[in-house]
Amino acid sequence: MKEKLTIVKVGGAVVEDEAQLSQLLKDFSAIEGRKVLVHGGGRKATKVAEALGIESKMVNGRRITDADMLNVVTMVYGGLVNKNLVARLQANGVNALGLTGADMDVIRSHKRPPVSLTSHLSPLTPETVDFGFVGDVDRADGQMLSRLIEEGVTPVMAPLTHDGQGNILNTNADTIASETAKALAPYYHVTLIFSFEKKGVLRDPNDDDSVIPTITREDFVKYKADGTISGGMLPKIENALAAIDAGVSRVIITLATAIDGLHGTIIK
Amino acid sequence: MKEKLTIVKVGGAVVEDEAQLSQLLKDFSAIEGRKVLVHGGGRKATKVAEALGIESKMVNGRRITDADMLNVVTMVYGGLVNKNLVARLQANGVNALGLTGADMDVIRSHKRPPVSLTSHLSPLTPETVDFGFVGDVDRADGQMLSRLIEEGVTPVMAPLTHDGQGNILNTNADTIASETAKALAPYYHVTLIFSFEKKGVLRDPNDDDSVIPTITREDFVKYKADGTISGGMLPKIENALAAIDAGVSRVIITLATAIDGLHGTIIK
Repeated sequence: MKEKLTIVKVGGAVVEDEAQLSQLLKDFSAIEGRKVLVHGGGRKATKVAEALGIESKMVNGRRITDADMLNVVTMVYGGLVNKNLVARLQANGVNALGLTGADMDVIRSHKRPPVSLTSHLSPLTPETVDFGFVGDVDRADGQMLSRLIEEGVTPVMAPLTHDGQGNILNTNADTIASETAKALAPYYHVTLIFSFEKKGVLRDPNDDDSVIPTITREDFVKYKADGTISGGMLPKIENALAAIDAGVSRVIITLATAIDGLHGTIIK
Repeated sequence: MKEKLTIVKVGGAVVEDEAQLSQLLKDFSAIEGRKVLVHGGGRKATKVAEALGIESKMVNGRRITDADMLNVVTMVYGGLVNKNLVARLQANGVNALGLTGADMDVIRSHKRPPVSLTSHLSPLTPETVDFGFVGDVDRADGQMLSRLIEEGVTPVMAPLTHDGQGNILNTNADTIASETAKALAPYYHVTLIFSFEKKGVLRDPNDDDSVIPTITREDFVKYKADGTISGGMLPKIENALAAIDAGVSRVIITLATAIDGLHGTIIK
């Protein structure tokens, strides 16, 4: 019988709002048993970059990470956001340890090669986009993470990885969360919670209470075909279903203030 | 028979000079057996603060850490400097783990209360100076650190601690190094190496080759009385002798490019 493990991914917007953050830390601290926190930190990095006179370049809503921006995200995600979360969790009695993928080599990635993309500016002609110092994950080390967790440690993971050749790379926090969940699935009964600005996946985007309680792969195919689920929610659920296929027990999409596992949409 | 452990403290100046840094990382990686790296990062923080329009306030050569500056040092020491060192050590085959005092609660401190100091501006009338978010160390957790080290991990420690109440505090890197050495002395035969811009403690400040090979407490009393050792070197050696009294086997003061334990001044 595997032990229960809860992985909570929290976005940058929550981290920057003191009221939401302090509620989240309280709720996360109250989760019983083994747990992991994964954080983003997007807008804070944009603000610090702005203050430093570094332009934030985005393509299709994704950040281009040039050398200057890599320094900013390393500072903001790996330092400012991560270490403050760790200190505050310690104050709540959680034995937190901040980690990037470089620390104990827990997440190895490779620099994303330039990709061919269409955008709203050129919907028909694909352009070649170099995302810069962005890492696509090769592997997360579930064994090393589980050893830490068995020591009573709660990993707090920043959205940074490394390439094993001395370079930090910027990596999407949702990806960190699902790769960590998959890597820990052989050791634990894993619940992966994506916190979010809505109460869950909505049947009607205009009705905040129209949360779909559970989605299986079968349901997803149907909801996709009939247009109930569309846009940015599609890759989120594809990602969640891939985690389920890799052995994660369930994925929950819910409000940042409702990470108790009792609210939101359960994907299984 | 205790195992050998080497703790190397490297200053901010070395971290910022690519040629010196890459040599240091090569030398540190070549040290056999268990080891810990402690880093500073002072000038980089000053530069980032400057770029952000935050004024660096110094009193008697020590930084005043207001709330804005605390954010800067958390970013620069805990993120930029620490994570790049970790990634580069990983590339050298060292299983590095970046730590602040908050991570796994390894170094707990308290905020320094305002102190009464004289300065060159007011040599006769002491002024009350509030250093701000600066932490004086209460304890380092040698047991937790030794457990990590026995797992094959090399801690890379940033000059940041926490107060257990959710606050990160700025802490002198020399202090981090000596407190870590003292906390690990019950578990290991500890050599603490302070890297430095000179070849060691000099008998004649104008002769770079006049390194004093060893200093005991007896020697120190004598050198202090006859003026051979004076100024900023006094607290460094007091600090080293305190580490020896607390069970550290030897302290070496040497060039950053000569951390092999065979050069510099040995304090024992």
